[in-house]
Amino acid sequence: MSDKHVYRFDEGNKEMRELLGGKGANLAEMTSIGLPVPPGFTITTEVCNHYSAHGDYPEGTRAQVEEALAALEADTGKKFGDAADPLLLSVRSGARASMPGMMDTVLNLGLNDETVNGVIASTGNPRFAWDCYRRFVSMYGDVVLGCKPQSEDEHDVFEERLEAMKRAKGVTYDTDLTAEDLKELTTDFKAAVKERTGRDFPDDPRDQLWGAIDAVFGSWGNDRAVAYRRLYDIPDSWGTAVNVQTMVYGNTGEESGTGVGFTRNPASGERMFYGEFLVNAQGEDVVAGVRTPRPVSELKELWPRVYDELMEIQATLERELRDMQDFEFTIERGRLYMLQTRNGKRTGLAAIRIAVDMADEGLISHEEALMRIEPEQLNQLLRPVFGPSDKEEAVREGRVKAKGLPAGPGAATGRVVFNAADAVAWAARDEKVLLVRDFTSPDDIRGMDAAQGILTAQGGMTSHAALVARQMGKVCIVGCGALDIDLKARRFEVDGVTVAEGDWLSIDGFTGEVILGELDTRPPEVLQVLLEGSMKPEDSEPYRYYREVMEWADAARRLRVRTNADQPDQSENALAFGAEGIGLCRTEHMFFGGERIMSVREMVLAGSREAREKALVKLLPMQRDDFAAIFRVMGERHVTIRTLDPPLHEFLPHDAEDTARTAAALGVSEAEVRAKVDDLHENNPMLGHRGCRLGIAFPEITAMQARAILEAACLVKKEGGDPHPEIMIPLVGTRKELAHQAAIVRAVADEVFAEQGVAVDYMVGTMIEVPRAALTADEIAEEAEFFSFGTNDLTQMTLGVSRDDAGKFLPLYTSEDLEIWPADPFATLDQSGVGQLVEMGIERGRATRPDLHVGICGEQGGDPETVKFCHRAGMDYVSCSPFRLPVARLAAAQAAIEESGDLRLEK
Amino acid sequence: MSDKHVYRFDEGNKEMRELLGGKGANLAEMTSIGLPVPPGFTITTEVCNHYSAHGDYPEGTRAQVEEALAALEADTGKKFGDAADPLLLSVRSGARASMPGMMDTVLNLGLNDETVNGVIASTGNPRFAWDCYRRFVSMYGDVVLGCKPQSEDEHDVFEERLEAMKRAKGVTYDTDLTAEDLKELTTDFKAAVKERTGRDFPDDPRDQLWGAIDAVFGSWGNDRAVAYRRLYDIPDSWGTAVNVQTMVYGNTGEESGTGVGFTRNPASGERMFYGEFLVNAQGEDVVAGVRTPRPVSELKELWPRVYDELMEIQATLERELRDMQDFEFTIERGRLYMLQTRNGKRTGLAAIRIAVDMADEGLISHEEALMRIEPEQLNQLLRPVFGPSDKEEAVREGRVKAKGLPAGPGAATGRVVFNAADAVAWAARDEKVLLVRDFTSPDDIRGMDAAQGILTAQGGMTSHAALVARQMGKVCIVGCGALDIDLKARRFEVDGVTVAEGDWLSIDGFTGEVILGELDTRPPEVLQVLLEGSMKPEDSEPYRYYREVMEWADAARRLRVRTNADQPDQSENALAFGAEGIGLCRTEHMFFGGERIMSVREMVLAGSREAREKALVKLLPMQRDDFAAIFRVMGERHVTIRTLDPPLHEFLPHDAEDTARTAAALGVSEAEVRAKVDDLHENNPMLGHRGCRLGIAFPEITAMQARAILEAACLVKKEGGDPHPEIMIPLVGTRKELAHQAAIVRAVADEVFAEQGVAVDYMVGTMIEVPRAALTADEIAEEAEFFSFGTNDLTQMTLGVSRDDAGKFLPLYTSEDLEIWPADPFATLDQSGVGQLVEMGIERGRATRPDLHVGICGEQGGDPETVKFCHRAGMDYVSCSPFRLPVARLAAAQAAIEESGDLRLEK
Repeated sequence: MSDKHVYRFDEGNKEMRELLGGKGANLAEMTSIGLPVPPGFTITTEVCNHYSAHGDYPEGTRAQVEEALAALEADTGKKFGDAADPLLLSVRSGARASMPGMMDTVLNLGLNDETVNGVIASTGNPRFAWDCYRRFVSMYGDVVLGCKPQSEDEHDVFEERLEAMKRAKGVTYDTDLTAEDLKELTTDFKAAVKERTGRDFPDDPRDQLWGAIDAVFGSWGNDRAVAYRRLYDIPDSWGTAVNVQTMVYGNTGEESGTGVGFTRNPASGERMFYGEFLVNAQGEDVVAGVRTPRPVSELKELWPRVYDELMEIQATLERELRDMQDFEFTIERGRLYMLQTRNGKRTGLAAIRIAVDMADEGLISHEEALMRIEPEQLNQLLRPVFGPSDKEEAVREGRVKAKGLPAGPGAATGRVVFNAADAVAWAARDEKVLLVRDFTSPDDIRGMDAAQGILTAQGGMTSHAALVARQMGKVCIVGCGALDIDLKARRFEVDGVTVAEGDWLSIDGFTGEVILGELDTRPPEVLQVLLEGSMKPEDSEPYRYYREVMEWADAARRLRVRTNADQPDQSENALAFGAEGIGLCRTEHMFFGGERIMSVREMVLAGSREAREKALVKLLPMQRDDFAAIFRVMGERHVTIRTLDPPLHEFLPHDAEDTARTAAALGVSEAEVRAKVDDLHENNPMLGHRGCRLGIAFPEITAMQARAILEAACLVKKEGGDPHPEIMIPLVGTRKELAHQAAIVRAVADEVFAEQGVAVDYMVGTMIEVPRAALTADEIAEEAEFFSFGTNDLTQMTLGVSRDDAGKFLPLYTSEDLEIWPADPFATLDQSGVGQLVEMGIERGRATRPDLHVGICGEQGGDPETVKFCHRAGMDYVSCSPFRLPVARLAAAQAAIEESGDLRLEK
Repeated sequence: MSDKHVYRFDEGNKEMRELLGGKGANLAEMTSIGLPVPPGFTITTEVCNHYSAHGDYPEGTRAQVEEALAALEADTGKKFGDAADPLLLSVRSGARASMPGMMDTVLNLGLNDETVNGVIASTGNPRFAWDCYRRFVSMYGDVVLGCKPQSEDEHDVFEERLEAMKRAKGVTYDTDLTAEDLKELTTDFKAAVKERTGRDFPDDPRDQLWGAIDAVFGSWGNDRAVAYRRLYDIPDSWGTAVNVQTMVYGNTGEESGTGVGFTRNPASGERMFYGEFLVNAQGEDVVAGVRTPRPVSELKELWPRVYDELMEIQATLERELRDMQDFEFTIERGRLYMLQTRNGKRTGLAAIRIAVDMADEGLISHEEALMRIEPEQLNQLLRPVFGPSDKEEAVREGRVKAKGLPAGPGAATGRVVFNAADAVAWAARDEKVLLVRDFTSPDDIRGMDAAQGILTAQGGMTSHAALVARQMGKVCIVGCGALDIDLKARRFEVDGVTVAEGDWLSIDGFTGEVILGELDTRPPEVLQVLLEGSMKPEDSEPYRYYREVMEWADAARRLRVRTNADQPDQSENALAFGAEGIGLCRTEHMFFGGERIMSVREMVLAGSREAREKALVKLLPMQRDDFAAIFRVMGERHVTIRTLDPPLHEFLPHDAEDTARTAAALGVSEAEVRAKVDDLHENNPMLGHRGCRLGIAFPEITAMQARAILEAACLVKKEGGDPHPEIMIPLVGTRKELAHQAAIVRAVADEVFAEQGVAVDYMVGTMIEVPRAALTADEIAEEAEFFSFGTNDLTQMTLGVSRDDAGKFLPLYTSEDLEIWPADPFATLDQSGVGQLVEMGIERGRATRPDLHVGICGEQGGDPETVKFCHRAGMDYVSCSPFRLPVARLAAAQAAIEESGDLRLEK
């Protein structure tokens, strides 16, 4: 590590995030561009890493802190610990990535029974001084000395005492307490500390300072911080910096205040100065969501000069920092101070709108804009809303019972639960739940994740609930004061109605409305434009943003996107979402439609090749029609069709009634049907007689399917189309299997083309889904013109896990406690295990056949991390379900941009 | 290729097998050591490869053949095609490895209507001359011109005409036909050739010669040759040489003869000159098994001078060629000629005895001896024999109906079938069959392989049936003339009894006895000595050979051998077979004994951790006793014990009665038991909640098992034992799973050692059986002290094949037609697929932990090819079932010897 462990704010800048953390770098940047930042210094993340490893500081840190402190004293003209006019400090963590609510802060540090008098003397405001002191003792007691609640009922050691005092004094707000009250409270707090820790509260300001610094560095390893880092993939090695800053006060009285601001609306993304403030309060009061703050626009009337200054500063901030800023400010006796700024959290909608607007404004490049949108956020544009008439009906019926702050847009409906554990438990049994709380804390994160939506009685748009819900893309309403929640009884009252645990409730995250009962949801505007045609493109703002993002993404990405679709209508949807082909068309999905299943069963029950061929003859025209319809929809785009994959017993009847119906329809005895079911029973059908093993045992099935595909292609070509079928053989594990099946397909093709007098371009290839296929891809590529990684089965076999049965241990395996799997491997590709086989398969396949066309058709193909992996692994395309295509397109663009390492690629 | 395409016999030697083939090299060797070999020359295998690739000869071949032919003419004083005294030739194939019956031969080449008169003139024997001519036309017609039978009933175009002539003339033997008869037959044969080929039989001797050479080279690619090479893993690239040799005649009359000799008995291995001959015959008559020949000992009386010369030659041959020789000789008018020699085929018993004897005689090293025994041949020492009393009873009851030649030792019983196809079909449905034929041909190989034993009415100890059966290690009786077989009616008569298809029959391959009915079989001597103690070592000759082979193998091998054993008695058997430890002890196999299953079910049905622990407490002492008993048997040898592996539903009742019994025993309702069965049902249990996934969901199970193992070890250590338990966690796919389980084991170990006041050496390791474990072996080795490759599951997952369900397509996949898998991958490790993961796992595991102990415990661990692979891959040991240990020990020794490349390692 470097010898310099401490940077004064005027020594750093915004480029130094790694060393100074996000907060420290931005404080330095603001200082350097002349904004009114209270002076201070930052202890580097390198010190944190040393502290984490050794439990102590590297040589030089203590001396450099003393030196910086001396500079602060010189700067402010105050002395730390001075009995007359003491310098008071804040100590805050500041990691490279913002981690809201997770890291700990101490304000008003430097106060003791002696210096408090100095504050009284210098400010002439005893109430203020004692207010600071009691705040300091409680924060320090909580954060540094670890005085935690000792039972479930006890929410906070100090908060409780404060409430008791307020009750005793008969007042509603903290601000109604007198200096004497606060002094008494301070004494009471210190007694509580001693009771719980067995030690006196530290009086020496230097002990206080080092205790706080220790606590911040120590908190890097606390459970909540570790859990948060896991949730958001933040490396432990980043560490946090510590920012020590001169205190300024929003709580000196009615001429002071504190607030937070956003340079754009974090919920909608709209370009506007947006924020909230509280008069006579410290910053924590706003963020904690205990008092509901006032909109920042009211500042304009209250303190117009401060408002103008803030307007100018926020414009400067966004210009300099090139992203939407979320900043804290304090007004101390009419003077404005900037306490911190950071890139603001935002909803998916806002992320999209802000990125697109900033690019349109010329502030950032298209590539930067794309990198600022999490691919999953696009889902917010594609997420259900309430149908207007349903909603109107609810309004008419008076079921809209309250209105809160719309902190996370979208529409959610679910059954009410009152704590995070219940939310997780109910969701695990597939219940849709809404989590209702007074306010949320970091302990609630898992429950919020499990819920359809979150509704809180307290807090503002920047409360914990609002921030986290926005980040998760959850529908969320906060600060709905009309709710009277009884957590213990598990019910709330609203507008004279009681809503109990398990009752249905709906929330509209666009408007903040809380609605009794279950409401149907319907597609959002983008889908109304793209799929239903029920809205015109030009009428929809969300659609415009969607379109721009997709255009830029398509320009940036190298990876092509295809879709998994088995039917013509699915294919049409997929085209609307930008599909450039079909990566997986499962022929057997067509087998279940209408009367077809009887023809399929006739084939399965056939006792001889002749009988089987007779049944296949009936299936041929049905399959041919299906394929022709798909080819017509897909135009010249390639369509990969997989030959029969599932074991034949899947097509047989499973109950007595269906058995009887089948026997009657096919003119066989029920006993024969049952005998076949028994005969085909498998212990592990996943590893049984399926895939190409069927086509090898019954070559006539492969021949029929090849014929249906190629006849359909010839038909459509004669109609003037330009179909490109790719015939894909499933479950290949050895070269010879594919050679066997490919020979059948090619022989059929020659026949069909001769019969039809027309030929089409087609390819024969294989799924790579058996581990052995990846290991021997060099040999298999001798026969295959393309590979498609079937990562569903490849994951099942490589991990030895049946997706159907994994439910028994998957939650345990992905739990935070064990975290055996970082994610569900069927949702996000297991890159370090299965990924090795994918890379090996591509490398070896291309070693044999350099122009081998390669894609993925497993369900992970629509997962952003997996898409990026596929890009890096050199695939030609990913294929996913139609609704995942926008996500895949953006992830593919991001992969290309990440690979180039250049955010300014714009042409 | 080299410029020299043709070698005269006096230009080569025995080291030139690759170039001259086995036959050519040995002819050259015999020539060079002065044995009486008719002069000739060899066209090299390089020419064959050129011919196979281009369909024509390289430049120079034709000229060099002409040159060598000129030298032959000079040597013999005869001219090829001379009308007065023509040179006649044999043309034979000669591959590097002997391929009996597969390649083709032409004798008496050079005869035509003109030269036949020259032979008559020079020998004064028209009958002989026409006999040669008719033989030549039929062989040439068959082999070169491809005059094959045209229906199933027609056995051979020419043989039929010969039989017809014999019937017409009222004679029994060929030798009773006159010169005129044979002349007529020759004309008839030539007409048959024209009829079938549309062309005249070639008269020009040079056309004949090149036709024959073409045919031999062409026959390298015929179906039978290709099938044989596949069966015995002979590379196509070896090619065959062609040997052109001056004819000598065993069929000039009663003063001539032909025969085959073995330097040791090919059935028993006994050191004796052994052979058979026919007077007035050509070599093909002996080998074809049509006439039953006389034992060579009768030569001593008939032609004592020739006999003495043969005795001397056979001793020379074995000394020079250092292996048991199988040679052909011809006596032409009292003069002895050697026509070929080769290493003799032999039974497993003979292979062992010959190898051991030769090493004991100082002729070869121990290592050479070991390399001459196919590991599977050891099974012949371990294969059942008839119980003496059963056999005596059969004798008393007069069920021994005939006696043939004991061509393949051992005892076999089965149901009679009359053709190879039936043998294959019946065996496929698990019927034990005996294949009964007049004689066998190469077309019968698959049927012979499928049968328990082979019984033929015709042929001698060197007939096709005898040679092939010996090589396969099949029980075989040949030349049993008492059988009157009606192939079409599918029955035979013997001694007045009719035996029909499907009837039970037994054959004693040691004595040649054919016995009606099914006879029980019993363990062979080696097992009586080793396991039953019913025979003393010094009384058993087979045991002595077994012991010497095992001693030498143990001295040569590096790979250790362990056994898979779950019970003390199995462990004792394994020690008798040389187990050096237990590689896999499956704890759950103990769960089914006696009342235990109820305690196990109590555990499975437990609704809470407490209830489960209560049930586990009952299981603990049972498991502990089992482990203690095993540790006592195994002494200081390492014992690898796997924690619970199968899914819990395997332990639950599967029928109503058992459900009722379980409910009653455990005091729960039947509905509860059924509900648990339903709850635990899995679609693919192989990939379900099993292995370490159980131990992670229910850590108390792992803890109980670890406790039982370690308490047992402490107990046995206190008794004075020295147990070394290795605790193996199954189905690990990620490092964290193993870390989780290993932590439990180590914590329990600390507790147990503290409680017991004694500690034992133990290790914690894992099965590598999930593909992901092999891919991430570097990470897993951070936690594992040993790896054991569970190649059963690893094969299932890598190939995506459930062993339980593979029966539906495995026969198809291993069939000769498709040969998708060269062998059953659950019997012989799939080296090119699964083997890659094994190699990767070892390499990556040792990269992390260089002293990582590595073994295999899948069932392939007893397969010789797999054992050799494990040696090459650097494993420390293989583990297999007790009865496979001798095979594994020998295979391990061969692997070490192959690796060293030095056959003369003896100390």
